[in-house]
Amino acid sequence: MKVGIAQINAVIGDFPGNAKRILAAYRECIEKGADVVITPELSLTGYPPRDLVFKSQFVPKCLQALDYLADEAKVIPLIVGYVDHNTSANPGKPFRNAAAVLFDGKIQSLQHKTLLPTYDVFDEWRYFQPSEACMPIEICGQRIGLTICEDIWTEEYLQRPLYERNPVQELVEQGVDAIFNLSASPYALHKPARRQSMIADVASEAGVPVIYCNAIGAQDQLIFDGHSLVASAKGEIVAHFPGFEEAVRVLDLENLEAAEVNEPRVDEEQLFRALVLGLRDYTTKCGFSKVCLGLSGGIDSALTAAIAAEALGPENVHGLTMPSEYSSSGSVSDSIQLAEALGIRCDTVPIKDVFEEVKKSMAPIFGETEEDVTEENMQARIRAVFLMALSNKSGAMLLTTGNKSELAVGYCTIYGDMCGGLAVLSDLPKVDVYSVSRWLNRESEIIPWATIDKPPSAELRPDQKDSDSLPPYDILDSILELYVEEQISATDIIEKHGYDEETVRWIQRRVDLNEYKRQQAAPGLRVTTKAFGMGRRYPIVQRFID
Amino acid sequence: MKVGIAQINAVIGDFPGNAKRILAAYRECIEKGADVVITPELSLTGYPPRDLVFKSQFVPKCLQALDYLADEAKVIPLIVGYVDHNTSANPGKPFRNAAAVLFDGKIQSLQHKTLLPTYDVFDEWRYFQPSEACMPIEICGQRIGLTICEDIWTEEYLQRPLYERNPVQELVEQGVDAIFNLSASPYALHKPARRQSMIADVASEAGVPVIYCNAIGAQDQLIFDGHSLVASAKGEIVAHFPGFEEAVRVLDLENLEAAEVNEPRVDEEQLFRALVLGLRDYTTKCGFSKVCLGLSGGIDSALTAAIAAEALGPENVHGLTMPSEYSSSGSVSDSIQLAEALGIRCDTVPIKDVFEEVKKSMAPIFGETEEDVTEENMQARIRAVFLMALSNKSGAMLLTTGNKSELAVGYCTIYGDMCGGLAVLSDLPKVDVYSVSRWLNRESEIIPWATIDKPPSAELRPDQKDSDSLPPYDILDSILELYVEEQISATDIIEKHGYDEETVRWIQRRVDLNEYKRQQAAPGLRVTTKAFGMGRRYPIVQRFID
Repeated sequence: MKVGIAQINAVIGDFPGNAKRILAAYRECIEKGADVVITPELSLTGYPPRDLVFKSQFVPKCLQALDYLADEAKVIPLIVGYVDHNTSANPGKPFRNAAAVLFDGKIQSLQHKTLLPTYDVFDEWRYFQPSEACMPIEICGQRIGLTICEDIWTEEYLQRPLYERNPVQELVEQGVDAIFNLSASPYALHKPARRQSMIADVASEAGVPVIYCNAIGAQDQLIFDGHSLVASAKGEIVAHFPGFEEAVRVLDLENLEAAEVNEPRVDEEQLFRALVLGLRDYTTKCGFSKVCLGLSGGIDSALTAAIAAEALGPENVHGLTMPSEYSSSGSVSDSIQLAEALGIRCDTVPIKDVFEEVKKSMAPIFGETEEDVTEENMQARIRAVFLMALSNKSGAMLLTTGNKSELAVGYCTIYGDMCGGLAVLSDLPKVDVYSVSRWLNRESEIIPWATIDKPPSAELRPDQKDSDSLPPYDILDSILELYVEEQISATDIIEKHGYDEETVRWIQRRVDLNEYKRQQAAPGLRVTTKAFGMGRRYPIVQRFID
Repeated sequence: MKVGIAQINAVIGDFPGNAKRILAAYRECIEKGADVVITPELSLTGYPPRDLVFKSQFVPKCLQALDYLADEAKVIPLIVGYVDHNTSANPGKPFRNAAAVLFDGKIQSLQHKTLLPTYDVFDEWRYFQPSEACMPIEICGQRIGLTICEDIWTEEYLQRPLYERNPVQELVEQGVDAIFNLSASPYALHKPARRQSMIADVASEAGVPVIYCNAIGAQDQLIFDGHSLVASAKGEIVAHFPGFEEAVRVLDLENLEAAEVNEPRVDEEQLFRALVLGLRDYTTKCGFSKVCLGLSGGIDSALTAAIAAEALGPENVHGLTMPSEYSSSGSVSDSIQLAEALGIRCDTVPIKDVFEEVKKSMAPIFGETEEDVTEENMQARIRAVFLMALSNKSGAMLLTTGNKSELAVGYCTIYGDMCGGLAVLSDLPKVDVYSVSRWLNRESEIIPWATIDKPPSAELRPDQKDSDSLPPYDILDSILELYVEEQISATDIIEKHGYDEETVRWIQRRVDLNEYKRQQAAPGLRVTTKAFGMGRRYPIVQRFID
């Protein structure tokens, strides 16, 4: 059997567009000799459609589009992911996460998803009723076990044993020739390698090939990386699809040879490519072709600009330097050097006059009070006024440039440098901002070495340095990984991991107190296993001290 | 049996504080002759603790606090809601939503929650494994059916039959003398009356009294309204607890007489009291005693100021009027009149000079372009710079004043008038802003009648009126109720509800396009069945046109 794997990029709710993409890939596979074609999980709706499914016409229009695809599917079966009504007479959730096998102009068979992830960024139990049974489906004379994403994830790869059912086992017990998996598995660093190892295990345990078709493309905070795979019955990975781009290929299951392992790329390259895809898809799927951003001469804005220039082309990136009396001379000159290296436009608009005018306006209320954080925030917010004016006037989406470490401890100004439609680096710890920047400079100086080498500073008061307010970034990031990503309590970080109590307690307080800022932050691209945003749901009002 | 009902206000994660509150209520009930004392759902952790439960020390510290309460519980049983580990050997979620019966210094018995709401604002399947069984518990020689919140909600009061189990039926079949329910049921308009009718039905069908103890107090976006109840075996409501305040009372189940019905209050009063509680709890639980806000002379900021003055005292509310060249004279004079009526401070800071300076700064980039929405937004954002400066300098939390109708169609400026720590009216449609304001003026003029009677305007360009950009508010709000609250597709609103196609399509486009603004909005107090915020999860990038 020759399997066509369509690793395609859907847009949520775009039924006509997604159907067109699916059909184009289907026809391409047929031309390449496919006997059957598989697409990703919810390929027709995009993943995750979230509460859109509750709209009265969402599922009806989805089913219309599925009928259209069925009409177009002739001899060669096409497997499509879609959202179905739950038509069972039993109580339960209103919908199903489903896969249909289409040929001879009809929906010939279907399978509902069995294991519904309801953790981290996933909310499937909010919408979907699990399958009642998993049954092999006959396709091209072979018995195929059809599974959807989580259905194939085994306990040792989950955080804990979560499910009482085991769809792969249910299918294997009934006898199958191959397992197909329609997937929409979002990217996190090291996840492609983890998936590969998991799928190899599943194949060798089941003793049949596994065909794994993953989505590619970004949807809001989630980046789907592709990296579709085929594992042989022996558990060898015999086909690697590329990451972060669409790919349509046909594999002959009777003629599988161990594929050249093109993974792992270095982490920095993987992160860079993930962020480029995330930025490109978010902006273009929202209808923007241009972005703008503030260039401070620091490393975060420099890396963000580099990612944007790669994603959209340098001609579509507009930088603004906005020096104040506290800015170093490098803040402008390094920005101009960066802009030249990237080929992007850069303008300079000093904030001094507006800053003075704002202070003068507020003076009757503030009286003789000392300057404090108020005036620091004022500068950041005046810059936001300038940047949003540029965004409004030029139609360029403003990017915000803060990294995960800053956002964690609230070292950023709400309605100031946090302004923007997308937070490109908000899931990248500062130490990774450095390593990705160095990787980017591996052949030539793109980000000025001066930017990379100087001590980081917000430049909001004379001679300010990040190190005045924050622990060294390597320590900060190590503690944040434990506290934020692994959700280990401060007490345990001190007692079991041996970090300095005062530092840990300072970080704990700052992370907890700044939840209010993060809940008004721009959507950020997720590249770790635990990002701020949809997958991390903390109350703002809370007094738990752990 | 005399039941003490402790309708108390917990703070999420505040184990020492919550234990103290529970104990104080327990002792008060004992003094009043109680044989048993019931507290709300998760009374020890606060509801909902959300992802805090994943922290390595959260459940251990919760169990420590429970042990402490058990130590303090002597002869009289105390029923406490808490989060437990899932200790079952079977796969499943890591935690339980639990209720423990404490007496003689020990945890004597416990019951896990069976029905786990995973819709709207609820995410319980993310955390909790349901009970394996519901068993009557003997308390004071009576067989008590212990249930937790959703366990008692019957199908006809849910959106659709959701659950295969029926805890009340399981308990009644085993024989019970009464049903106790520990609840944390958030407020929405008309929900208190709905709960009352549902609980009366449950009691009469089961043929035993139902004791319903609901939480009170606001937690971020959710307002728990209390309104605890006792229903007799005949289905009569024999005790009403007050709404929006703590209350501790003892009821004699052997001596129940139909209570005076003190519900319904008028809708406007209920909404006002809900918002006052929501604002007071959000600010004070966050550690703020003061708030500030912009006063535009319009009705939204006027009502917000009135709610704040009621919640925190007028001496803790600081208003700022920030007139521009486009402001009507009323914008300042009506604000001053309002401030006098409320007894709050009001200062005036014109924006003209800063506005001119910002335009001058951007002129080299903007060149000869016409003024457009850029300059309108600039004014709103300059006001935000002023207000946040006041907030930073004075330590007062900034309130944002936009209503639900504006937020729905994006008739508001991100990083401008959307700035603030809490969005007080963001779930109140404009027509309700009017009706609550009129109700507030029922005895004397608190909100200037000029503010209520003048045509609403954002005053960002000469002679601007809301009606230049928006459909009439009564039509807008009717369509928004269908589109946002009921999630009915635009096609169905046009075809089945008979609204004008052009108007509906305009609203649909605006609601969909402005999702990005709402995802950066301040947390808003939920007072309808479907608020923007945690209970409404739409993608930003999506192309579904319904």
